Amino acid sequence: MVKVNEDLRKERDRCTFNIQELTTLVDGDLQKTLDRKERENVMLSKQDVLKKVPDEYLSHKEKYENAIRESVILFGLVRRMQEEGKTTIDNYRDVVGGLLGSSTTRDGSPLGLHYIMFMPAILNQGNEEQHAKWLPRAWNFNIIGSYAQTELGHGTFIRGLETTATYDPSTQEFVLHSPTLTSYKWWPGGMGQTANYCIVVAQLYTKGHCHGIHSFIVQVRDEETHIPLPGIKVGEIGAKLGLNAVNNGFLGFDNVRIPRTHMLMKHAQVLEDGTYVKSRHSKLNYGAMVFVRVVIVFDMVNYLSKAVTIATRFSAVRRQCQMKAGEPECQILDFVTQQHKIFIGIAACHALRITANKLWDTFHAVSEELVAGNLNRLPELHALACCLKAVSTADTAAYVERCRLACGGHGYMLSSNLPLTYGLVTAACTYEGENTVLLLQTARFLVKTWQQMDTANLTPTVMYFKEASSKGFYDKWQNSVEGIIRGFQVVAMRKVETCVETMKGRAASGMSLEDAWNQTSVQLVSAADAHCRVIILSTFYEEVVELAKTTSPELKTVLFQLVDLYSLYWALEKLSDLLLYTSISQKDVSDLQAMYEDVLRKLRPNAVGLVDAFDIRDEMLQSTLGSYDGRVYERLMEEAMKSPLNAETVNDTFHKYLKPFMQGKL
Amino acid sequence: MVKVNEDLRKERDRCTFNIQELTTLVDGDLQKTLDRKERENVMLSKQDVLKKVPDEYLSHKEKYENAIRESVILFGLVRRMQEEGKTTIDNYRDVVGGLLGSSTTRDGSPLGLHYIMFMPAILNQGNEEQHAKWLPRAWNFNIIGSYAQTELGHGTFIRGLETTATYDPSTQEFVLHSPTLTSYKWWPGGMGQTANYCIVVAQLYTKGHCHGIHSFIVQVRDEETHIPLPGIKVGEIGAKLGLNAVNNGFLGFDNVRIPRTHMLMKHAQVLEDGTYVKSRHSKLNYGAMVFVRVVIVFDMVNYLSKAVTIATRFSAVRRQCQMKAGEPECQILDFVTQQHKIFIGIAACHALRITANKLWDTFHAVSEELVAGNLNRLPELHALACCLKAVSTADTAAYVERCRLACGGHGYMLSSNLPLTYGLVTAACTYEGENTVLLLQTARFLVKTWQQMDTANLTPTVMYFKEASSKGFYDKWQNSVEGIIRGFQVVAMRKVETCVETMKGRAASGMSLEDAWNQTSVQLVSAADAHCRVIILSTFYEEVVELAKTTSPELKTVLFQLVDLYSLYWALEKLSDLLLYTSISQKDVSDLQAMYEDVLRKLRPNAVGLVDAFDIRDEMLQSTLGSYDGRVYERLMEEAMKSPLNAETVNDTFHKYLKPFMQGKL
Repeated sequence: MVKVNEDLRKERDRCTFNIQELTTLVDGDLQKTLDRKERENVMLSKQDVLKKVPDEYLSHKEKYENAIRESVILFGLVRRMQEEGKTTIDNYRDVVGGLLGSSTTRDGSPLGLHYIMFMPAILNQGNEEQHAKWLPRAWNFNIIGSYAQTELGHGTFIRGLETTATYDPSTQEFVLHSPTLTSYKWWPGGMGQTANYCIVVAQLYTKGHCHGIHSFIVQVRDEETHIPLPGIKVGEIGAKLGLNAVNNGFLGFDNVRIPRTHMLMKHAQVLEDGTYVKSRHSKLNYGAMVFVRVVIVFDMVNYLSKAVTIATRFSAVRRQCQMKAGEPECQILDFVTQQHKIFIGIAACHALRITANKLWDTFHAVSEELVAGNLNRLPELHALACCLKAVSTADTAAYVERCRLACGGHGYMLSSNLPLTYGLVTAACTYEGENTVLLLQTARFLVKTWQQMDTANLTPTVMYFKEASSKGFYDKWQNSVEGIIRGFQVVAMRKVETCVETMKGRAASGMSLEDAWNQTSVQLVSAADAHCRVIILSTFYEEVVELAKTTSPELKTVLFQLVDLYSLYWALEKLSDLLLYTSISQKDVSDLQAMYEDVLRKLRPNAVGLVDAFDIRDEMLQSTLGSYDGRVYERLMEEAMKSPLNAETVNDTFHKYLKPFMQGKL
Repeated sequence: MVKVNEDLRKERDRCTFNIQELTTLVDGDLQKTLDRKERENVMLSKQDVLKKVPDEYLSHKEKYENAIRESVILFGLVRRMQEEGKTTIDNYRDVVGGLLGSSTTRDGSPLGLHYIMFMPAILNQGNEEQHAKWLPRAWNFNIIGSYAQTELGHGTFIRGLETTATYDPSTQEFVLHSPTLTSYKWWPGGMGQTANYCIVVAQLYTKGHCHGIHSFIVQVRDEETHIPLPGIKVGEIGAKLGLNAVNNGFLGFDNVRIPRTHMLMKHAQVLEDGTYVKSRHSKLNYGAMVFVRVVIVFDMVNYLSKAVTIATRFSAVRRQCQMKAGEPECQILDFVTQQHKIFIGIAACHALRITANKLWDTFHAVSEELVAGNLNRLPELHALACCLKAVSTADTAAYVERCRLACGGHGYMLSSNLPLTYGLVTAACTYEGENTVLLLQTARFLVKTWQQMDTANLTPTVMYFKEASSKGFYDKWQNSVEGIIRGFQVVAMRKVETCVETMKGRAASGMSLEDAWNQTSVQLVSAADAHCRVIILSTFYEEVVELAKTTSPELKTVLFQLVDLYSLYWALEKLSDLLLYTSISQKDVSDLQAMYEDVLRKLRPNAVGLVDAFDIRDEMLQSTLGSYDGRVYERLMEEAMKSPLNAETVNDTFHKYLKPFMQGKL
């Protein structure tokens, strides 16, 4: 048993609440904690097989080869859990999507998309025959699939995709073709060297008409030899900021023929003679998009929990500067500027998780309504998922970077695991809908809602528009969480109103509606962001009020401190909005600032306990700076010694280049 | 001659000003442009020798070996320039420090610190005999040096360094020792496998007394065999977010003896009998710190110029979304949200360069006063360099990330060169003084200035404190650059005042001064930031007024648009401060917002011309997205094909792991 760093031990001793109680609350209930721990035991049971030279010292090619070796071991464990009935396609997220998956295959996996996109696409878009034909083979990993939508020249605007699938009734086949360089598929995970099948999204042509984008199952490599099939051009797209183990690929088609039955036909169909049969539920696909975006919010919470665990523990161990002459150097966690950098991330883990849980439940409720044919709440839910994905990814990226910078130079070491975590988080700002585009989609919904406010019934999450615009809703500012929520509601409402008025003015002066929208878009993005802040903060607060009914008094106190911190931090961040749109005074602002500094002080003694409660095992944290025992400096040195450069006393280049150069011979 | 992308050609055709004129203005004058181009020609003349598999596909060890191979070629060119008298130690920055150096050895060089720190340290801290002994050998690269200050457990707080140098009069030697793991030197560039000498900063002990930190020249490896000398423990620290070609190392001493004459003795000395002779100019070292920090600001400008060039050209080539039905997809540069992301970076290149130039000139003027014994302006200059380094690095990191994210998924590709650029820029937020610590140093100066305002003469850069606090200075808000500058002055002054009052209140309620300072430190950081914004914005404006006297009317218009953009952007960013401390009204704010949107629109047609004027050759830009000809998609595919994974049809892991796994055998 290794000795735990003395400072960390003291921190844990003085924690005022029961850490285990908070862990249970984070997991949901005790059974869920036990289930999670069992999954972790299974998935981490092969750690010895995995251990070698750390990935960061390998070449790009070696990283891929190692990712395949490790993925096969890990997905072998998944297959065993499947066989034992411990996991179904419904809860794959627990296994590969969440914290666990992202840590055992730290920089992604070439098999991830098979589980996350390929199987779900067949499940959601395929008909029963297609399910019967493809799912068993996919479920058993007899085939490995990818999902190809984005093209080299086309991303977020999917109507612009160029790949074509043209139906040929004479052979009852689709002909897949890439007419240009920009039409090459670009980004699909596992596409480079791994997958032998793929879902391809392409423009469907039949009987001379284009019917927009549809999905097709395409075999890309021979099952026996793995050699690309004729007409298929496939490879990997090269090195990236992160996700380098994912084997993202490109894919081009030179008139590749596939059977008619390879079009996913649950919704729209192409009959044998080429007749196109339209989908009766064209909006159902929105459901899948909402689903994926909620999953992303949970991912963000997982990454952020890691980052704050690392930064908090490191800050408790690291000592620097004498606060007072003659005293020993102090723990950097005692600096208020350091608390300011880190604690907001801890609070945000809870705020975002709780909001995502709520959205997840709403999503499931609405899904049942959808099946029953009631699509009323779909636009609202879609707007919500858009802004929540955008705000949670952008905020998390900022929080993680704050944590990394809070660890100074050591945060710059890959062995801290903070740079990689940032790389994975910032990717989410772009994939599954670029954040600015998503916020503008939310803005469109909000503007529409505003314009119909007097004539239509408002759906729950925008109900506050009416209240906030009613006379007397907000006469006097209040320095409290509820006051801040009301203030944020007024801000969001007034921002939407201002956008509408600005666009009206611009249209009146002769601008086209589209140009007026574009010219106002910076403000529209800001309005959607403000709306999202209302949702997160009010959900966080309301749910904590509920949760606190059954927690111990000690934990209750801490939970409300986190809500306070979160609301005060964001009130101060968005102060210009509050000053513009509410009656907040200069005195209120300086009180808010003091309250913020005070809550940092209150949370300080529990900081280590708060991150311990996220209960992230060292094998999953994979950080020299963040491990439970706090042996920061020992681990930094141990990791450095794993560098292959340190395995030899003198590197060959000394004799080959350096010495001749120093002697003036080169 | 490759065809230039049609969209880019059109952009250049409609540019309203003479691009060459702006390039000359950026360089300083025409002769400087010619000199720069000549240096580029020399340094880029060996490009063919350098070309191979891109660095991002190599292993960590291969990256090092390649860095040595390339550095020897490149520093061979430097040596030739030295021999031809084209460069001296005074202008090494032009050769290795600036844009050129950072692009030919893109991720840093193991020989960089030899030039940037080792030689200057000997020059500045060594006496004449030491100059004669060491400089010729260093200048000719007969020895290669590093600079070791930071330790595993000690960074910004250098008084806390643990390495000891104890004088032994019996042998007239210093004994260097690392008493703990945390005392190991950590980070010195080139230290891992490259350098054979090193400047070591250690606590000097003689006659039983500690005299604080001093610098020593230490040989670490044998000149012939390169084997570490007895008692030396040396190696590299491992993989990092960036700078992986720098070969950062660790260094420990087990009672290593060096001659007394290896202590750098220009200032303090240890005599043969062990008598310590104090330096007469203990503050002179501040000068070197100021110098290094100004150099960092110039580095930031170089990196940012690259990032905005890449993002702007890509945004002109990339088409996405139909703004109006039936029209072709539009250039994403036409989206106002995109302009909002990128144009501020273009303006900031000029604002930061101009401010750094001014500080550079001031620094040289003050240096002469220093030599003459006048230290009056040193605290001011030090405070200025601290905040300017902090704000310029933090801002640039944010601008570069905006540029990267503005390029969507393609910005995530390493071949865009944006991720690496971010990695290099964000490192500067930590090295040479961590940003938060630096801002607190500036804050300390500002607080002191405020407290002495009525009794002491204010130095030039804080003169505005008095004006801004005088009655009637700011009765009516003005929506103009001058109005914003005055507003920022009031904000900075009032923030410092508020901090002082808050700390007084806290001290009055029984807090120690140190605790009151700490508890107020978030606000102190913000006050120092506000002061820095005053300096940058006012310097930018005043210098452009001067420059515009001799430019063409067309360029003058554009320069003032950049000043407008920069001031409007930051006024809106810092709106809460303006609302709190000035008389700005709601109407003024909405006018500011409209003015901001308007200046984006005005700059739009000149965006490509503005980045072309930075005149960065493709070989230095090294970006698939940013090259002059705009062949974005072709280059992305060409770079992808350089991945060694794409050199083979089927990777070995298919047969070894994947196929057995798919067949259920693994």
